[in-house]
Amino acid sequence: MQEKLDQLKGILAVVSDLHGATALLGWDQQCYMPPGGVTARGNQIGTLSSLAHSKFVSEEVGSLLEELKPYGESLDPESDDACLIEITHRDYQKAVKVPSEYVAEYSRITVVAHGAWEEARAKDDFPHFQPHLEKIVEMRRQYAEFFAPFDHVYDPLLDDFEPGMTTAEVQQIFTEMRPKQVELIKAIAEKPQVDDSFLHLHYEDQKQWDFGEEAITKFGYDWNRGRQDKAAHPFTTNFGLGDVRITTRVDENFLNTALFGTLHEAGHAIYEQGIDGALDRTPLGGGASLAIHESQSRMYENLLGRSYDFWVHFYPQLQDRFKIQLGNVDLDTFYKGINKVEPSLVRVEADEATYNLHIMLRMELEIALMEGVLEVKDLPAAWNDRMQDYLGVVPSSDADGVLQDVHWSAGILGYFPTYALGNLVSNQLWDKINQDIPQLSAQIQKGDFAELLAWLRENVHRHGSKFKPQVLVNRIVGSKIAPEPYIKYLNDKFGAIYEL
Amino acid sequence: MQEKLDQLKGILAVVSDLHGATALLGWDQQCYMPPGGVTARGNQIGTLSSLAHSKFVSEEVGSLLEELKPYGESLDPESDDACLIEITHRDYQKAVKVPSEYVAEYSRITVVAHGAWEEARAKDDFPHFQPHLEKIVEMRRQYAEFFAPFDHVYDPLLDDFEPGMTTAEVQQIFTEMRPKQVELIKAIAEKPQVDDSFLHLHYEDQKQWDFGEEAITKFGYDWNRGRQDKAAHPFTTNFGLGDVRITTRVDENFLNTALFGTLHEAGHAIYEQGIDGALDRTPLGGGASLAIHESQSRMYENLLGRSYDFWVHFYPQLQDRFKIQLGNVDLDTFYKGINKVEPSLVRVEADEATYNLHIMLRMELEIALMEGVLEVKDLPAAWNDRMQDYLGVVPSSDADGVLQDVHWSAGILGYFPTYALGNLVSNQLWDKINQDIPQLSAQIQKGDFAELLAWLRENVHRHGSKFKPQVLVNRIVGSKIAPEPYIKYLNDKFGAIYEL
Repeated sequence: MQEKLDQLKGILAVVSDLHGATALLGWDQQCYMPPGGVTARGNQIGTLSSLAHSKFVSEEVGSLLEELKPYGESLDPESDDACLIEITHRDYQKAVKVPSEYVAEYSRITVVAHGAWEEARAKDDFPHFQPHLEKIVEMRRQYAEFFAPFDHVYDPLLDDFEPGMTTAEVQQIFTEMRPKQVELIKAIAEKPQVDDSFLHLHYEDQKQWDFGEEAITKFGYDWNRGRQDKAAHPFTTNFGLGDVRITTRVDENFLNTALFGTLHEAGHAIYEQGIDGALDRTPLGGGASLAIHESQSRMYENLLGRSYDFWVHFYPQLQDRFKIQLGNVDLDTFYKGINKVEPSLVRVEADEATYNLHIMLRMELEIALMEGVLEVKDLPAAWNDRMQDYLGVVPSSDADGVLQDVHWSAGILGYFPTYALGNLVSNQLWDKINQDIPQLSAQIQKGDFAELLAWLRENVHRHGSKFKPQVLVNRIVGSKIAPEPYIKYLNDKFGAIYEL
Repeated sequence: MQEKLDQLKGILAVVSDLHGATALLGWDQQCYMPPGGVTARGNQIGTLSSLAHSKFVSEEVGSLLEELKPYGESLDPESDDACLIEITHRDYQKAVKVPSEYVAEYSRITVVAHGAWEEARAKDDFPHFQPHLEKIVEMRRQYAEFFAPFDHVYDPLLDDFEPGMTTAEVQQIFTEMRPKQVELIKAIAEKPQVDDSFLHLHYEDQKQWDFGEEAITKFGYDWNRGRQDKAAHPFTTNFGLGDVRITTRVDENFLNTALFGTLHEAGHAIYEQGIDGALDRTPLGGGASLAIHESQSRMYENLLGRSYDFWVHFYPQLQDRFKIQLGNVDLDTFYKGINKVEPSLVRVEADEATYNLHIMLRMELEIALMEGVLEVKDLPAAWNDRMQDYLGVVPSSDADGVLQDVHWSAGILGYFPTYALGNLVSNQLWDKINQDIPQLSAQIQKGDFAELLAWLRENVHRHGSKFKPQVLVNRIVGSKIAPEPYIKYLNDKFGAIYEL
């Protein structure tokens, strides 16, 4: 059996190499590629993706997995090999259910849809995008049917990003959370607003860059196995666990953009840098799910980066760099400024208190589209109604409303919930970490993140995607993904800031 | 037949995509990759190269080529399709003669040899490298045997880099050239040396960079389809004809390094940017050979970059940037300084008058090794003897002598001659260009390179590798590769500078 397993691992290693090379093609496209490279780049990514896909869904992999399955079940279920066989078998079963003609056709229509979306957004012209989104919804329903029977038509979509998670589970969580978040925002709106005008002064690019890099160096980001570059839309990517790169963008007239962007991406990257090297070049050498990934990025961005403790250590250094802008702003004022709550139209600029409501709105609309109870033509109105209900603001144009996100144009449905789930998980972990490391707050105030990192390495990072997200969370905190810790965190934090 | 041809082109496009992705993996490795990425990068390059190779040597390609061969011969022999079928057939015949076990083994031993060479060079310890080079020579002899019968055991090696060129042809050229170059150097040595001390002052990195980029912009380097980055060992690479990138290194204490490096690489890149877009994603979408490639890089580096005409236009701009260093250096002095002739130990730093002698020495030693008349253990002594004969200087250590170049450690034999041949071709073309564009000298003095570029596009660039190098040169100048124009150029140029 060891020989069969080695044979399987050999094929998976080739697939992993192709994914790694594809990721580099993508990184370069977003960071350095000149405009003239775009056609060739599309061909290269297409060729490599298609080779990786056909290597993976080959009959050879199928029969190796069939032979190995009983062997895997005979092993310690937490062993690398048992998990490898189980997860690969699961991925394989999913992959072979989708005909390659469907994959090619979906890829084709989303390329066109993306172009139409760009134009529609630029011209604030939803009807121009509408037929493309209709086709996408239709094909996503078709996609779900490949996995019939299912409890809910949205389940197969969600499962692609959050393995094992069901629509019902997420709906239950969101239903519990929504009124509490809406209530909190209303309470804040009745209080005097905090001042954040000092964040909108001119902050020199290079100094912002350097500060961000120093902060994440303290977090434990390993520059020997990574680097940071500029990109219009920040992301983290890896080409193997020894090369995990982050990107950010800098706005010289708003301090938050690069600062929290870098901390966020570093959270993703430190996760991947911490995955056990033995899992490299296998399907287990990535994060457990998007929600678990987001729990790490949001932890570094928010639970650390927007905490008072963090700035006790870092604020004097930041002030020192930006004497003119921050010399007369005290720590308390700065802390409140970076935590200003203000319902706004755009998700990616939303604060912690309002962010999840943007997500719920999107998931509800996606589900309604998939169920067929909402038609695409009625989507803008439905969007605006919910914005009014949840956030009390309504976009004056679809460009700032229903057309703001790239996801649907790229054919990605079922992804949004993972952002909100990541926030929840980050707080569940955070409570447990503070139990296990009672002196954590004092350590952070001294800029010492070593014990925190060691905890994350041991409990989260090293496992890669060996465990499904709910299993992993349960292993660590003894319960499934749940909203209470996050709600409590929001109420405590913003209750103090806004004196509720 | 059109259907068969399309089928073939489809496979070749996939092979080309894999080569493009592999090139990006290499570019990134040399420009940006963090140290931790090296293992994964090796795996990725290995996987993609091996996939490209196996796609290309597949039986499908073989039988398509067999079927298409008569069709190709029925077409206009200068048409893209006729050339594609012919060149691909030729490459395929060569590729299938080499067993894949040999390829894998050679790749393995050269990786080890490269490590041993690095150590040997650092410690000036040739015996440490010796057994590795012995193995490489042995395997190169084996390689040649795959192509038996041959006129000379060195022919199959040379053919990999200079298709259709024979050892006898090159030897004849070099034999004619050698005494004339040796004689010129001796004559120069008897004259007072020119001053180039001003080139060794401190020149700010960014200003050097900007000047180089402005110069190659004037040459016609298309930034929409390229970019320049820093690398320890400058090179040009492409990922399709719409994305041709150059790299350079900057020495703040020597003006020549970045300046002539950028001009040189721009010559390579402008060549590839000028290849007919219809040849992209086919085996014809590259340079005709290494010598033809080098003819373009040496033309931009030397025939333009080290010419008096060029500096009539550019010197005032350079002086303006570096007032302290060059404010008191007049154009004549500057021109002589950048053309200083001085026999030296290291090929990559050699001037135009001595460069080819470094190459001849290497080719002669390679041939002697391949013929078996020289043993690897006697190589250092043979190196030093020839250095004395040709250049009148002898290295005090093997690190500055026989161990200086990376090529042998990487298993590359038969490559060196192309550098010298490139010099010859550049001058054959230059004479023809000056016949066709009598006002060229005046144009260059005005910084106008448009007509030159148009000539190169029409006569050289657009053809890609449709024609073998000797065929291409003959099409343009009406004779094969020959040394006379180069010898005349050297005698005229250095005769004037050194008042011979």
